[in-house]
Amino acid sequence: MIQNETIANILTRVTVRNFTDEPVSDRSLRLLLQAAMAAPSSMNLQPWHFIVIRDESLKRILKDSLPYARMINRGCAGIVVCGDTSLYEHINRTDREDNTLYWVQDCSAASENLLLAAHAIGLGAVWTGVWPLQSRVDRLRGLLDIPGHVVPLNLILVGHPVSLPLPKEKWDEKKLHYDRF
Amino acid sequence: MIQNETIANILTRVTVRNFTDEPVSDRSLRLLLQAAMAAPSSMNLQPWHFIVIRDESLKRILKDSLPYARMINRGCAGIVVCGDTSLYEHINRTDREDNTLYWVQDCSAASENLLLAAHAIGLGAVWTGVWPLQSRVDRLRGLLDIPGHVVPLNLILVGHPVSLPLPKEKWDEKKLHYDRF
Repeated sequence: MIQNETIANILTRVTVRNFTDEPVSDRSLRLLLQAAMAAPSSMNLQPWHFIVIRDESLKRILKDSLPYARMINRGCAGIVVCGDTSLYEHINRTDREDNTLYWVQDCSAASENLLLAAHAIGLGAVWTGVWPLQSRVDRLRGLLDIPGHVVPLNLILVGHPVSLPLPKEKWDEKKLHYDRF
Repeated sequence: MIQNETIANILTRVTVRNFTDEPVSDRSLRLLLQAAMAAPSSMNLQPWHFIVIRDESLKRILKDSLPYARMINRGCAGIVVCGDTSLYEHINRTDREDNTLYWVQDCSAASENLLLAAHAIGLGAVWTGVWPLQSRVDRLRGLLDIPGHVVPLNLILVGHPVSLPLPKEKWDEKKLHYDRF
């Protein structure tokens, strides 16, 4: 029915939490990060930073310290998508309204690109939320030496899937409104 | 070099601000909304709502009232992506930490899916930011009768592109960090 490969990829993407021990190649990781950086961003500020985590001892520390990242294994890589909040400072002064949080939208679009690209090349990924939970932000900031003007949005784990769950059926006509809510 | 259609689509997607007068078909719009609803969401809450705007007189009102939406023309359709903040209420009480703003990430992922799907089927789109600018939120809330627990994140315009700009080169090694920031 859906003949377009991109749309099929969007509709069949699933969250993967179980990874084999086969490591993600540097080439694949680079492709995922390229896809992430191709996201649109408010005023083209591209406020993202990516911390790629491959060191086994650091992965073990994260696995032991972060209850939401217990699925870390030998094969997977971690990618922490962060936003640079300092980019908005001079713009706020002229606009009078606080647009700082545009980084959240831009970094989320970048994260979604990354998940879609992973699925497209046969990898699986899970987006674990960090911001706006302050305890998670602080913990990750400490573990990864993230400076104050940079905020970790999430920790994405990516690897070779043990198996692919069936996509969830999410289409819901009740979410649609026409011309007015 | 990139042989994967999905990844090529991600890397070549551009913002389109000029649309022909040819309307977007119902079938295409539905496909875009299906793609949007396939996004991942925190705790699978799917907090999104979509207001599809096709009425010509309403479009003229938006064009005249919203400086950032001046590119509205006869051909394009508007889609306001909104988040339902009421879904988080009971969860906040157990978690003690405020996770309400997860809707921003989920609705941004849905928006990115929509933009990518539009590009994949030969349409063009522009994501105009609304939240967190309070004046834009209030204005759109009034014009589209959006209830208090629902927040408009953006107004996406989609249509047939007059022309496709070249994709921006956004790859930037300085945004990459390994194991620690």
